[in-house]
Amino acid sequence: MGDRRIPEATVARLPVYLQVLVEAAEAGTLTLSSDDLARASGLNSAKVRKDLSFLGTYGTRGVGYDVAELTTEISEVLGLSVDRAVIIIGVGNLGSALASYDGFDRRGFKVAALLDADPARIGTCVGGHEVRDAAELPAIVREQDVTFAVIAVPAGRAQEVADVAVAAGVSALLNFAPTHLTVPDHVTCRTVDLSTELQILSFYEQIADGPSAAAG
Amino acid sequence: MGDRRIPEATVARLPVYLQVLVEAAEAGTLTLSSDDLARASGLNSAKVRKDLSFLGTYGTRGVGYDVAELTTEISEVLGLSVDRAVIIIGVGNLGSALASYDGFDRRGFKVAALLDADPARIGTCVGGHEVRDAAELPAIVREQDVTFAVIAVPAGRAQEVADVAVAAGVSALLNFAPTHLTVPDHVTCRTVDLSTELQILSFYEQIADGPSAAAG
Repeated sequence: MGDRRIPEATVARLPVYLQVLVEAAEAGTLTLSSDDLARASGLNSAKVRKDLSFLGTYGTRGVGYDVAELTTEISEVLGLSVDRAVIIIGVGNLGSALASYDGFDRRGFKVAALLDADPARIGTCVGGHEVRDAAELPAIVREQDVTFAVIAVPAGRAQEVADVAVAAGVSALLNFAPTHLTVPDHVTCRTVDLSTELQILSFYEQIADGPSAAAG
Repeated sequence: MGDRRIPEATVARLPVYLQVLVEAAEAGTLTLSSDDLARASGLNSAKVRKDLSFLGTYGTRGVGYDVAELTTEISEVLGLSVDRAVIIIGVGNLGSALASYDGFDRRGFKVAALLDADPARIGTCVGGHEVRDAAELPAIVREQDVTFAVIAVPAGRAQEVADVAVAAGVSALLNFAPTHLTVPDHVTCRTVDLSTELQILSFYEQIADGPSAAAG
């Protein structure tokens, strides 16, 4: 999947920096030092400086990083400088939680539609969006130029739903179903396994218990 | 937060390998090559071999990795060789989705209790668990030896809930509220921001669009 110039772990931290920057801008802050950024992100400042150096950004000694400039740079690297239309497929508990999540709009994503195959859900309103018939997916993707789909259906239906979305022209899938999806090479797919996060937490928790525990 | 011997990005992939191994074992497979592991994980085999080398595991040339042995090794590194008791605080849409998620049990986590402060929810049953009064949190943590708490309350209440959980003896927090939490040094906290995953996806999607897009 292409470019290796920015390490994965750095890419994963860029959204965190972006959140800190957006909050700083809202509070009227014009510059942030790497120490400020580190403190607000829960990281050390050497890591912050190294991460940002991958963007070609080094800040100004004694002044720090320009908040507006760094916000633009990170947004561009993440491809967020234009709003992206997202559909959420599956409006059960998880899909409803995602639809009601107010962070998407502020981060460059626009929820274009919620889709479900259950007649009992179609036509209801969730998080301010009307739930539409899953059969309308291809038309919605075409009309609203949707590139991103969030999959929040049960594991057994995820591949089928992914196939339909990809056939309709979606090129990036965020999959919350606990199953591996097969997609064509031109499609980017990330699976978010909620137990994965608990397992990663477990690793760091046992390291915090004492170094001997980490020897494995 | 301690040990740097295993890189963060490797730690984040260990749960993926574990899932592949568990599925292989269920299918009766005794050994897997790094190619097999790579294919099922959506990675390249050089990365798989490098990741596993951090565990001190190199496999056997021409045979591959012993599925049972590697499962045990990864489980131990992740601290999953004993079942961990987890509480879920907040039983709205997201908390309900997490409570109904069947992946926790199979990955070394046992949901000890669901907690909510809303009288309308207390006493209801979600995902096979009774919702209990949030006021019972300290007693439940003590009685069931709970170390992990999943926070799925609104952002405005997350810090307060985290403080109560930490005071009760919880040492690891998985926070789904879109806010940064402040915790004492001995507590491990991971915040899962659902829009972060979309932003990371956006990065890789624009790289897939063409290398020039990634230059930033």
